[in-house]
Amino acid sequence: MKFSNTVAKCVACGFLASRVAAQTFQRLGTCPQLGCIFPPDQADFLPGQWFDIRLEVHAPQNGSERVPYANPDGNFTFTIAKEGGAAAQPATQYFKLQEPKLETWNFTWYEDLFASEADTPSFVKVASKAYRKVALYEPGQYIATLTYQDGETTQANWTVRDIPTKRRAKNTVMFIGDGMTTNMITAARLIAHQQINGKYQSLMAMDQFPVLGHQMTHSIDSFITDSANSATALYTGHKSTVNALGVYADSSKSPADDPKVATIAELFHEIHGGGVGIVSTAFIADATPAALTAHTRNRGQYGEVVDSFLRGIQNYTWVNWTGPDVLFGGGAEQFYPNKGSFQGKDYYAEFANAGYNVILNNTALQTASNDSKTLGIFSVSNMAKWLDREVYTENLDIAETAPDGGNGSATDQPGLKEMTLKALEILHTRNPEKGFFLMSEAASVDKMMHVLDYDRALTELLELDDTIKATKAYLESIGELENTQIVVTADHGHGFDVMGSVDTQYLAAQETDREKRNAVGVYEQSGLSQYVVANTSAPVGSDQNLVYTEGVNFPANVDPRYTLFSGVAAFPDHRENYTVHKRGPRIPALNVTGFDEDDYYVNYIDAVTGFIVNGTLPVSADQGVHSLTDVPVFTQGPCQADFGGVFNSIDVFYKMAGCLGLSRTSPVAR
Amino acid sequence: MKFSNTVAKCVACGFLASRVAAQTFQRLGTCPQLGCIFPPDQADFLPGQWFDIRLEVHAPQNGSERVPYANPDGNFTFTIAKEGGAAAQPATQYFKLQEPKLETWNFTWYEDLFASEADTPSFVKVASKAYRKVALYEPGQYIATLTYQDGETTQANWTVRDIPTKRRAKNTVMFIGDGMTTNMITAARLIAHQQINGKYQSLMAMDQFPVLGHQMTHSIDSFITDSANSATALYTGHKSTVNALGVYADSSKSPADDPKVATIAELFHEIHGGGVGIVSTAFIADATPAALTAHTRNRGQYGEVVDSFLRGIQNYTWVNWTGPDVLFGGGAEQFYPNKGSFQGKDYYAEFANAGYNVILNNTALQTASNDSKTLGIFSVSNMAKWLDREVYTENLDIAETAPDGGNGSATDQPGLKEMTLKALEILHTRNPEKGFFLMSEAASVDKMMHVLDYDRALTELLELDDTIKATKAYLESIGELENTQIVVTADHGHGFDVMGSVDTQYLAAQETDREKRNAVGVYEQSGLSQYVVANTSAPVGSDQNLVYTEGVNFPANVDPRYTLFSGVAAFPDHRENYTVHKRGPRIPALNVTGFDEDDYYVNYIDAVTGFIVNGTLPVSADQGVHSLTDVPVFTQGPCQADFGGVFNSIDVFYKMAGCLGLSRTSPVAR
Repeated sequence: MKFSNTVAKCVACGFLASRVAAQTFQRLGTCPQLGCIFPPDQADFLPGQWFDIRLEVHAPQNGSERVPYANPDGNFTFTIAKEGGAAAQPATQYFKLQEPKLETWNFTWYEDLFASEADTPSFVKVASKAYRKVALYEPGQYIATLTYQDGETTQANWTVRDIPTKRRAKNTVMFIGDGMTTNMITAARLIAHQQINGKYQSLMAMDQFPVLGHQMTHSIDSFITDSANSATALYTGHKSTVNALGVYADSSKSPADDPKVATIAELFHEIHGGGVGIVSTAFIADATPAALTAHTRNRGQYGEVVDSFLRGIQNYTWVNWTGPDVLFGGGAEQFYPNKGSFQGKDYYAEFANAGYNVILNNTALQTASNDSKTLGIFSVSNMAKWLDREVYTENLDIAETAPDGGNGSATDQPGLKEMTLKALEILHTRNPEKGFFLMSEAASVDKMMHVLDYDRALTELLELDDTIKATKAYLESIGELENTQIVVTADHGHGFDVMGSVDTQYLAAQETDREKRNAVGVYEQSGLSQYVVANTSAPVGSDQNLVYTEGVNFPANVDPRYTLFSGVAAFPDHRENYTVHKRGPRIPALNVTGFDEDDYYVNYIDAVTGFIVNGTLPVSADQGVHSLTDVPVFTQGPCQADFGGVFNSIDVFYKMAGCLGLSRTSPVAR
Repeated sequence: MKFSNTVAKCVACGFLASRVAAQTFQRLGTCPQLGCIFPPDQADFLPGQWFDIRLEVHAPQNGSERVPYANPDGNFTFTIAKEGGAAAQPATQYFKLQEPKLETWNFTWYEDLFASEADTPSFVKVASKAYRKVALYEPGQYIATLTYQDGETTQANWTVRDIPTKRRAKNTVMFIGDGMTTNMITAARLIAHQQINGKYQSLMAMDQFPVLGHQMTHSIDSFITDSANSATALYTGHKSTVNALGVYADSSKSPADDPKVATIAELFHEIHGGGVGIVSTAFIADATPAALTAHTRNRGQYGEVVDSFLRGIQNYTWVNWTGPDVLFGGGAEQFYPNKGSFQGKDYYAEFANAGYNVILNNTALQTASNDSKTLGIFSVSNMAKWLDREVYTENLDIAETAPDGGNGSATDQPGLKEMTLKALEILHTRNPEKGFFLMSEAASVDKMMHVLDYDRALTELLELDDTIKATKAYLESIGELENTQIVVTADHGHGFDVMGSVDTQYLAAQETDREKRNAVGVYEQSGLSQYVVANTSAPVGSDQNLVYTEGVNFPANVDPRYTLFSGVAAFPDHRENYTVHKRGPRIPALNVTGFDEDDYYVNYIDAVTGFIVNGTLPVSADQGVHSLTDVPVFTQGPCQADFGGVFNSIDVFYKMAGCLGLSRTSPVAR
């Protein structure tokens, strides 16, 4: 990790000591002063990585930062200097650009919860300019200086990392277990792998990676991240703000004009012309897949995100993006013509017209040609969970989930393994020499943790692990394993752990909430995992009696008498009976008051045999939230030695991009 | 990790499928059949490691396993065979021992919570023999077979690992953060290290280790461990049962006759004659330090544990133990003559008579000679926490905490860093050629997590990190850094994480529990850490305004307005206001009913401005419990490459012992 120079540090320390309130409620993230530079102080860059620069000068008209003048200085200047190089030059000169036009706008913010409750916002006037699509090619330290308002200055220390241009990996397969932590991996191992006298008889695929690291997931301007922001860090090497995809968050109203940074997918496509694959079990416009191509302050612009998969960004020139070779996931509501699709257009047709083979179910996936670019959309919204696909199959029978937008249900859905293996076949067939970059996301580890549905979350994690195992076997079979860097990581955590076991029969037999808690067994009473023991009372071969065999590492019984005493460290009001939710993904809390939509209580039909736990989250929360913990990074293949120990989320980008040879010392020849 | 052979596996699978209840409530851990062998199936051994063998034949007289005969078979036979070697031989012949005498006893157990509630125990008669102090010198697979009751057999597959005898490290320093998880390290970094725009300006010492691993902490017969059991796994390479120190748990009444395994301290002392150091912030008879020398089924035998530090085990011959060079910690109640000391004796005198320099405070520690063996006991019970020693110093003024057993308070206590650095000086001075093994434990990370006192737990973790940094600097200064293997790990977890921030001013200003929850800020509202920002409203240099400087990596302010929204995933009834507990370690729950000592409710004087959270643990729990999660292993120095990736807790022993050259192909010459 790069350390800042003393100047930047003292500036920041001075600020931090002087304005504590802004620590949590901020006028604008990464902009403690009244002059803002994006990318901000401490930003790192890959040599030749494209980015935009946004400058803002703020004039707060009230509140704790009120200034004695009515308008911000529009005549600010901006220079760039390389340490040990020539004197500071105006950015227009340095980047050979025209002076951009001045923009102005206003915004308001609340300084704390008391101000928010009293509805007393602080009002800020802004003068701004943006410089688009620039790049720094020479490794080293740069100082960007914004001068405004009679000699006030804001300085940003930028580092262009010294990363060689040599390509060491032909392919990269990046697996993201969304919200996956070490704690969850430990719990998944316990329910899927046999243990005899303290020794596992088989291991997770992840357990068998040679190199382990931890990455820090925090945002640039808050210590808890969301998946948009963290995916941006992993794909661009630039941390950002919650809800931002591929941009630094400015204060303007438009989510499309925020300063952008180039992603690993864009760079790999532009520099090597190799194939890009995007696979997720989420609706495909969701943040983790979206961050590979989208550049918006607002991850909620789902229609625009889907258009960006096909055409790249829209509102001005960026890289020459022609779409991924493979795009597989859920989220049909952004594809069939409806209010959820961009400009109401038919995106199945848009992709087909661009030469894509469009498939809508697992049967078609299995028989699809490996020669064409392929769009596979298998359901409305998020795809079915492993537990519903494999055990409680009746839960797939939900009207209006079919990807064609009709009334049907999406009963013929692939799992992450089927999608990933097909993506690899297509990517390898289409890019035998140029190689590929594939991102494959197990999205519902996170989604099921949010709703406290631990059985579904852990089996989604096991499906990811099974996919990793199958991926290694496939790459081996085509002779590409040693050319391929495999990186398995997460984008953030949830505060989940397992503390013991629960006798669900005893719990159900107790009358009061306090008595039910006595069904919990800790320490020696936690016993051994019963999830790996076939349920002999169920018919052999039935869904309740999946037979455990080494190599198929899923529970042999998802509904044992003794279950896991597990939980998260922050939660809404809910009830716990520690029994698998057979009717489909859990809904722990509901607004039952009727008159206030932000007041959630225990869902009266959830886990009815259990006891009630009052929440710790704000009552406006109907589900759990992300957590701070560093998340694991398992790596094998070219450059694996770079991934040991503890590092920042952005370092994952620099390590992957460096291994793929995406550094450039001069502009790409077109 | 070693995989079992098919035979053992199918035996176990057959059992597992047939007797599910025994998964959690077990007649005897690791003994699913009626014949028991300790060490059990799947046990691993270091070549030449001493151990005992215990055989038991069970005759359940009632319950689900009732047998049709009144007594167990006393004429059982026991053989050992090496795979690919000679035919099976009687153990007496194989180990050249006399046939041990037959022992018999009875015990009872409950098959589940219903049986326990109805007080209907199952009654078991036992016939047993024990073989003491044997060893296997030749690497390979061994099959131990117990034959009983007309040809019934129980088989144990043992593995003597192929670990070279070559010594690669002169010294080992093993740091144990008791209960320390990756989540806690992440949180500790957040409150102690400056971050600017998503980049840390300094890092934890742990973050800078080159190699990272994860170890699985589970017990041999339950998936949640305690610290006795897990320390035994780390020091001996043998997992055991909750509360067991250096033994496999048998069913006999005596905790002293259970089958023992030699520890790394015993082996290092016996084989290399090097110095052993034991340092902990706990009462020194606590499990983590105790497991280096004690061999008992019951970690609660504190007096016996202290005697074992000095004399090794008592009831029969074992290794030639002459005591550690350094023993530093709390727990005076086992030293001054009283009912807590072994046989009521004065253990200060016992150690002094054995040639130890005995010191009772930090002043004496600082000036003590480095030439003598040294006992340092600095308080009654557990030592003071960093937060009380450094910030809320008035909390040290507690009567009857002085280590002399008088009425005074222990106000002159060293921290983990002072104890560890002095231990290193003594060990190096006394063992310039033979080297040393030092275990240094930050015990109160765990103890403070148990009582939900997160501020104290995290600052204890930071003190550990500061100790690691100082240890590396000291070893560098004496030229021993490259000769020393440094291993930093934990023995188990707690389900802790951080999910956001809390505006403690807003929380305190709200009237109702539900309104108070709205003080929590998640995602972008979590903001930035305020623990690194000096509190300018407090006098400069005051306890509330520790000045942050790089190199002293502790919070600059332990009592900011915006605190951490943190918690654990299982808890007793308690109240949360997310504010530092200024009056000393927290007590979250109390028995206030008066008539049932196992019925805990919210402590009416704890966190009174907060909101109540009803517990999820049994109502008999007054504090939190351990969790399942794999814990990190940070390593540097000789053999560091062996410690990457995911492995079992016992592997830590084999990696450390292998690096120290503790394997032997023949008995030690005396």
